[in-house]
Amino acid sequence: MSAAVEAYLAAHADEAVAELEALCRLPSVSTDPAFKPGILAAAEFMADALRRSGMPMVELVPTEGHPLIFAESAKIAGAPTILIYGHYDVQPPDPLDKWQTPPFEPTIRNDRLYARGVSDDKGPLLIPILVVRAINALEGRLPLNVKFLIEGEEESGSPHFEPTVERLKDRLRCDLVVSADGAMWRADLPSVTVASRGLVALDVVLHGSGKDLHSGRHGGSAPNAVRALTHLLASLHDDGGNVVVKGFAESALPPDPAIGEAIRAVNFDAGQYFDEIGAARPSPLPSGEELLTRQWLVPTLEFNGISGGYAGPGTKTVIPATASAKITCRLVRGQDPDAVFEAIVAHLRAGTPSGYRLEIIDHRPGNSAFSLDPELRGLKVAEGVLAELLGAKPLRVAMGATIPIGGVFEKHLGVGTIFFSFSTSDEDYHAPNEFLRLSNFRLGMTAWTRLLERLAA
Amino acid sequence: MSAAVEAYLAAHADEAVAELEALCRLPSVSTDPAFKPGILAAAEFMADALRRSGMPMVELVPTEGHPLIFAESAKIAGAPTILIYGHYDVQPPDPLDKWQTPPFEPTIRNDRLYARGVSDDKGPLLIPILVVRAINALEGRLPLNVKFLIEGEEESGSPHFEPTVERLKDRLRCDLVVSADGAMWRADLPSVTVASRGLVALDVVLHGSGKDLHSGRHGGSAPNAVRALTHLLASLHDDGGNVVVKGFAESALPPDPAIGEAIRAVNFDAGQYFDEIGAARPSPLPSGEELLTRQWLVPTLEFNGISGGYAGPGTKTVIPATASAKITCRLVRGQDPDAVFEAIVAHLRAGTPSGYRLEIIDHRPGNSAFSLDPELRGLKVAEGVLAELLGAKPLRVAMGATIPIGGVFEKHLGVGTIFFSFSTSDEDYHAPNEFLRLSNFRLGMTAWTRLLERLAA
Repeated sequence: MSAAVEAYLAAHADEAVAELEALCRLPSVSTDPAFKPGILAAAEFMADALRRSGMPMVELVPTEGHPLIFAESAKIAGAPTILIYGHYDVQPPDPLDKWQTPPFEPTIRNDRLYARGVSDDKGPLLIPILVVRAINALEGRLPLNVKFLIEGEEESGSPHFEPTVERLKDRLRCDLVVSADGAMWRADLPSVTVASRGLVALDVVLHGSGKDLHSGRHGGSAPNAVRALTHLLASLHDDGGNVVVKGFAESALPPDPAIGEAIRAVNFDAGQYFDEIGAARPSPLPSGEELLTRQWLVPTLEFNGISGGYAGPGTKTVIPATASAKITCRLVRGQDPDAVFEAIVAHLRAGTPSGYRLEIIDHRPGNSAFSLDPELRGLKVAEGVLAELLGAKPLRVAMGATIPIGGVFEKHLGVGTIFFSFSTSDEDYHAPNEFLRLSNFRLGMTAWTRLLERLAA
Repeated sequence: MSAAVEAYLAAHADEAVAELEALCRLPSVSTDPAFKPGILAAAEFMADALRRSGMPMVELVPTEGHPLIFAESAKIAGAPTILIYGHYDVQPPDPLDKWQTPPFEPTIRNDRLYARGVSDDKGPLLIPILVVRAINALEGRLPLNVKFLIEGEEESGSPHFEPTVERLKDRLRCDLVVSADGAMWRADLPSVTVASRGLVALDVVLHGSGKDLHSGRHGGSAPNAVRALTHLLASLHDDGGNVVVKGFAESALPPDPAIGEAIRAVNFDAGQYFDEIGAARPSPLPSGEELLTRQWLVPTLEFNGISGGYAGPGTKTVIPATASAKITCRLVRGQDPDAVFEAIVAHLRAGTPSGYRLEIIDHRPGNSAFSLDPELRGLKVAEGVLAELLGAKPLRVAMGATIPIGGVFEKHLGVGTIFFSFSTSDEDYHAPNEFLRLSNFRLGMTAWTRLLERLAA
């Protein structure tokens, strides 16, 4: 089967890119209510694409937030069942002025497709849909039972995902979940992800006076919300950037030794890393092992944004009434998202000076970290396909980013999740000029064709 | 003369308010280039108003920035000459959503006129122009020589004011400057300002990576510009809000003892102060004397704004590449603006961690603090007029805000400057919902009529 399907996919490669471009034109930003029409258009697009791929049952599953799409192939008795996961929502496109071409006008340059969401996760998600379409076109049926579950709130913390999985668990029943979300961590080295960090998010808002005040008239006597906020935020880390919040990391478990071995094996180049992200190399330069350990195995507390007072051109002599910051934490095995949230809030409350009012905006639920059973058969099949196509046995790596679905599917469906994504971690998802390598879009179609065939065996 | 002029002004009070409303409709924000048309319209408006007041010589003085207006009355040999100062530019109107009525649509509520710039300085500046018009209408001539110098960059640090005064000093020659800018510091207590703080401004921009990065993929290994900036800014003050920058305040001179006496005399109510600005009363509550001393006699380093990363709704999991803050310092006698600037920059450079790049945006020239000769005749005349109209001898007070003109006129013209303004410091200039008490607009016309008559004597 595989060779014919691969030939069919190669013959329809231009149509595949055109369909991906059409999907990327839909501005499906999940975190900002202004983009609701783009979200709904993208959900309808996914449902339609699945129908055109020959899935007999496709439905939109409403939630209190954005809808999911659930699809199911015709039942083949005795064959295994896989559930394919992905998401149709994307990150906000800001800052818009940093994009070389507009975020929702897909543009190809040097065999790369530039658009918000193309790498995370529209391109990788479209691959298995197109593969199913090709198999159905050639064979009239799939070699195993395939279900799809595609959500629209992944980029805003998946607030309705777990309740939906729990509610639909009988219909979602499967032997393995294969996620089209995730990322190869380096373009030149095959890898499979076996662990990811968890996430918890909050906003800190500090209120001083009731309104912005003249910095001449009131300077020295009135509360300055920006000054107090910088002091408060600065108390969360030491000068080396280590989190110093009591109760933050005490419950963290030691990492899986296999991941430590991968870290030592890959010769991560610290100097090259700073060059690639466009930062000055710090002096002294940390070792590559230390940097990668910090990315994969150390919890973080990062500020995602800060604002307060006047930010326009020139000067404005005001004392800001209010200042705020956005915080996300990446968590490792053993850290409970709620406990981490409470520890940070307690730290902030204790540090808020008299004369100011602290407001916390709670972006929970958070997600625990995820780690996969190293003996899982699906994992070994996926490794085999990648080894064959890429010429080397893939490394088992961890992921600094959060893919909460692994934990959710394990809890409610009792199955493991393998990550089989063809985006690469340097593709600027979550930043301006996000792109997808079209070579990987094509490679991914071959890989998914073989994966489905072998999982059926 | 005085009674007839005052009657004339009272008879034309409605026209006066209409003219002030027309002026306030012009969005003359000096700090933002987008408002250039509003600036030019306001400059033309001032020139036209002066012509309609019978000033025979009115001209726009171009600069590299916004134009000034210079006007001169017909020469009366042997009579003293005063130079009246004011400014036609205004603060930016942000945040727009906090205004009850739009900032450039003047609205009267409870005998107060609400509009951006109405209190600072369009209302107080229009008063002497209307008084000159009334005297010329009734008498056909003024009792003394009057010049006007009106600038358009006061709210953006007057970068071209001092060079212009130096260039025009022969034409500006006078015996006394009377400023229509400034503010009575409390609505219920007559006062004259005899000292003001200086100003120096800069922006701090910290650069980490070359672009915003995904907080999952890079969290823990990449520089976070917001984190580094908060640490850097937090190092400028101690926990009590005192500036701890070496070289910042060492050269400050002890204050004039007369101002200390005023501070003790006025019974400043600290609790009421925090209530009025809408802030929680800090515990322990500082004394009123301490608060007023901090407003008038202690130098400050205030953050006027901060920004970096994502500030929209919801969450966005980015590590900000860049973060920036705006700083203005208020200076006291003895502090050199350039030395203060250099001390802050040196502190910031020394504190910038390896791996980050510090950028300073220089908003100089700054201004030294100002203090007036207590024996100046014009000061005593002004005090006499106020005492007569308000029923009590005015206090000699200092001003936390900066009016750089006092030092400029002293240096280049060799004369003192008295502040004779009818705005009040609670009128939310530099904040949303700026207003002017129309009772003070009317009172100011009577006061300026008597001031001109007595200065002529």
